[in-house]
Amino acid sequence: MKKICIIGGDQRQIYAKRILEENFFVDTLGLFQGDNGSIDSSDILILPVPTTKDGETVFAPFSDRKIYLKEIEEKFKNKLVFCYNFAPKTENFVDFSALDSFAILNAVPTAEGAIKIAAENTPYTLWKSKILVIGYGRVGKILADRLRNLGAFVTVSARNQKDFAVLDAFGFSYINTEKLQNGYLDYDIIFNTVDFTVLDRNTLKNCPCDLIIDLSSKGGFDLEFAKTLGINAIKPGGLPGKVAPKTAGEIIAGTVKEFTCF
Amino acid sequence: MKKICIIGGDQRQIYAKRILEENFFVDTLGLFQGDNGSIDSSDILILPVPTTKDGETVFAPFSDRKIYLKEIEEKFKNKLVFCYNFAPKTENFVDFSALDSFAILNAVPTAEGAIKIAAENTPYTLWKSKILVIGYGRVGKILADRLRNLGAFVTVSARNQKDFAVLDAFGFSYINTEKLQNGYLDYDIIFNTVDFTVLDRNTLKNCPCDLIIDLSSKGGFDLEFAKTLGINAIKPGGLPGKVAPKTAGEIIAGTVKEFTCF
Amino acid sequence: MKKICIIGGDQRQIYAKRILEENFFVDTLGLFQGDNGSIDSSDILILPVPTTKDGETVFAPFSDRKIYLKEIEEKFKNKLVFCYNFAPKTENFVDFSALDSFAILNAVPTAEGAIKIAAENTPYTLWKSKILVIGYGRVGKILADRLRNLGAFVTVSARNQKDFAVLDAFGFSYINTEKLQNGYLDYDIIFNTVDFTVLDRNTLKNCPCDLIIDLSSKGGFDLEFAKTLGINAIKPGGLPGKVAPKTAGEIIAGTVKEFTCF
Amino acid sequence: MKKICIIGGDQRQIYAKRILEENFFVDTLGLFQGDNGSIDSSDILILPVPTTKDGETVFAPFSDRKIYLKEIEEKFKNKLVFCYNFAPKTENFVDFSALDSFAILNAVPTAEGAIKIAAENTPYTLWKSKILVIGYGRVGKILADRLRNLGAFVTVSARNQKDFAVLDAFGFSYINTEKLQNGYLDYDIIFNTVDFTVLDRNTLKNCPCDLIIDLSSKGGFDLEFAKTLGINAIKPGGLPGKVAPKTAGEIIAGTVKEFTCF
Repeated sequence: MKKICIIGGDQRQIYAKRILEENFFVDTLGLFQGDNGSIDSSDILILPVPTTKDGETVFAPFSDRKIYLKEIEEKFKNKLVFCYNFAPKTENFVDFSALDSFAILNAVPTAEGAIKIAAENTPYTLWKSKILVIGYGRVGKILADRLRNLGAFVTVSARNQKDFAVLDAFGFSYINTEKLQNGYLDYDIIFNTVDFTVLDRNTLKNCPCDLIIDLSSKGGFDLEFAKTLGINAIKPGGLPGKVAPKTAGEIIAGTVKEFTCF
Repeated sequence: MKKICIIGGDQRQIYAKRILEENFFVDTLGLFQGDNGSIDSSDILILPVPTTKDGETVFAPFSDRKIYLKEIEEKFKNKLVFCYNFAPKTENFVDFSALDSFAILNAVPTAEGAIKIAAENTPYTLWKSKILVIGYGRVGKILADRLRNLGAFVTVSARNQKDFAVLDAFGFSYINTEKLQNGYLDYDIIFNTVDFTVLDRNTLKNCPCDLIIDLSSKGGFDLEFAKTLGINAIKPGGLPGKVAPKTAGEIIAGTVKEFTCF
Repeated sequence: MKKICIIGGDQRQIYAKRILEENFFVDTLGLFQGDNGSIDSSDILILPVPTTKDGETVFAPFSDRKIYLKEIEEKFKNKLVFCYNFAPKTENFVDFSALDSFAILNAVPTAEGAIKIAAENTPYTLWKSKILVIGYGRVGKILADRLRNLGAFVTVSARNQKDFAVLDAFGFSYINTEKLQNGYLDYDIIFNTVDFTVLDRNTLKNCPCDLIIDLSSKGGFDLEFAKTLGINAIKPGGLPGKVAPKTAGEIIAGTVKEFTCF
Repeated sequence: MKKICIIGGDQRQIYAKRILEENFFVDTLGLFQGDNGSIDSSDILILPVPTTKDGETVFAPFSDRKIYLKEIEEKFKNKLVFCYNFAPKTENFVDFSALDSFAILNAVPTAEGAIKIAAENTPYTLWKSKILVIGYGRVGKILADRLRNLGAFVTVSARNQKDFAVLDAFGFSYINTEKLQNGYLDYDIIFNTVDFTVLDRNTLKNCPCDLIIDLSSKGGFDLEFAKTLGINAIKPGGLPGKVAPKTAGEIIAGTVKEFTCF
């Protein structure tokens, strides 16, 4: 049985640990207070999602000490390293953030989290509310599906004929993302999933919506400005870990297994 | 234009007021502090949902005074009175609680509210979670539909062949409610929608579920006992008014219009 | 093991036989040429769907002889008799046609058959076609669901507030059946599921639709007149037996089992 | 107004013509008997789908003469040419077969046609039947969606983690296409959508299914061999043109408009 060392991480890693223990010896370092797993004796290292927030130390919110990337990276050689949005100094690594399958599966808890936030921040049901989903990538695809399934009137914005055709075939209303700019966006709720500014200040000024939820990583509009206009604007961030750490942990464990032949 | 007097009520009544003002003169009495609408000069009276909580006064949480039912009932004659779960001393009245259509429409915000509560109280997604919905009445029908649409594995319990046939035709897993008693209920989340005790103490003792949400009016199981077993047991109550007062107000206004020919 | 005698019937009965043989001794009389099952020695008799077409003989299209109801009815005493739309001279019988569950389950093959007929008789896809389903009973409910799931724009007509509420909650467009009369029915395809004349001659004259499929039992409009107007008008009849005899046989067998404790 | 000449083609082109006439002068050559449209005076040429079946003449089933590609190609210069699976000797052309959007939209009538064929060739409903869809490309995606929406138990085969993740997120059962080979394929109906041999003779020998429908262009298995095993094996081909020429014509017209700024 191969040995895994989980380094840092939050609730998700704890759930991932439980699952991985079925097939591996699993040790931890910086996941709990005072844990002291050995990197050297492990075959596989699992760094957290995200691997680091400050660029220097491993993201380890439950740990009582700091784990410096510089120090542990020296020990990565000949091990299979899992990380997120990080390029470790070793050849044999898997960056979760580069895996389509990882992103797609995490889009499910993201979509559910976004729905929960919308439900909490509106005095009406999603049923029959007019919703715009900006972007038809991983999150957009799943979110649009779920919202429609709850009875919302969903319009999806996309940028190419292929996406328009898919949206049409699946019965969604759609609009060219380019036409949103300066348009009058007559929606109750807008979900943004793209990493560039679709809704500039001028567009926001004419936007009668109640709530904008930004699910992009880098941010797709001026949140603070929206708030000054009386629009409830929320950028939740890291939803899978927040609303469904168990599911997020299962996705991590499933991905690790897939790359180690289970 | 006919005159309406809205007596008491909460946020829902405020939203209903806005809509009704398109077709009626609308006055209020006990909906806001210091309001002083006239019952006598009104054609239609709208009492709140529920009409009373203590059996003596009108439910009027925003008001600064008490409105006694006894006092106002004398003025109901020759008016059309809307109320909820209440039998006013007049012939010409509509009890919302006796209207199938009213209950069905309110089942939508109830279902959405239940989904929100489930999302808040589990560390996993509804997607792929194993869910039991007890009862296939108004709330059960809509809740089961929404949960499945979010990707949950839904089993519905019902009590007659007709419901089994409908569930089968629509592709739901189903079980006879009678068989739940003393069964091993291998579900992550259980939603109860029926008003009798399906899950008795013995059944709860063997129930490995994480969360039970009771959406019945009178209560379908021993909440406190469930908690002692480590099950998160929640009886939210009055969800439409809490999670979607605007939608609930629209349903009130829509029903009033329907009975007054708009 | 109890003994069943299947009397008359078509392909459906042959499929039902296969399934029932798992739990019963099954004999046949008039299901095949030359078969000679004994009514006297059987505990349970299964008459066909429909039991008779002429009111005198059992419906037995594969048989080489006539089975007169008068003659066999004398032998029904002390047996459990299954029949369809027929009142046998015995107390212990089940009329399939009176069972909600039987009708609901058969609505599924009816809906699929109707979809097949629509696909065969239109030069366009159901996807994006404008469809009216008249009636929201058993067949209407399932047909509307399936058509929408195929991407059609579905409007359902119904006659009471309760049905409107259900249709609204499930996101269907709906219309009061009464308003169809003399209306301009701007649909590509109309499915009728009700047993009274909704579409009278005047309404048909102004109806721009391509195809009307009548799924009612007694007939809901003047088929021949519609044809003179250039509308393709079809009354298929008995779809479960025609398009899915195996499924229809399974429904028969399932219902028999349900009443005999399997 | 620009001039279009539709050259050859079948029913689809006739429907496309009707739509294009809203925005263009439309002439035809070889679409009808004796038509005599002028290529020279046209700005846009629309060749049929497929453009040619024999490699020499334009596909023109309704025409009374042969139109040789060689002869007309000389006149393509300075015109915008639409064709299908054909490389005309000119620079300014659009090959429909190279457009994702065109293929995706045509997957809808293909899926509906496949469903119709399945309904016609099985004695049971799609509801509750066990179905395998091989391939999760354009046709597989839409077909799997529609089949599930009709209540079938659908398993989709795919070949990469990304597709598995999407299938998982949308709640489909899935299997690695590689594992189908030599597997025991316990399905009632199999739809093939991929262009290589997934089901070889050995696999077919152990396949208990009733019906295989091959929707691939080049063919994904040995049809004739399957038939010798008693499996109903059908390769319909060109379904959009056959089952929904109007929809197929609308897709052609829509694509032409999209490239000519309408």
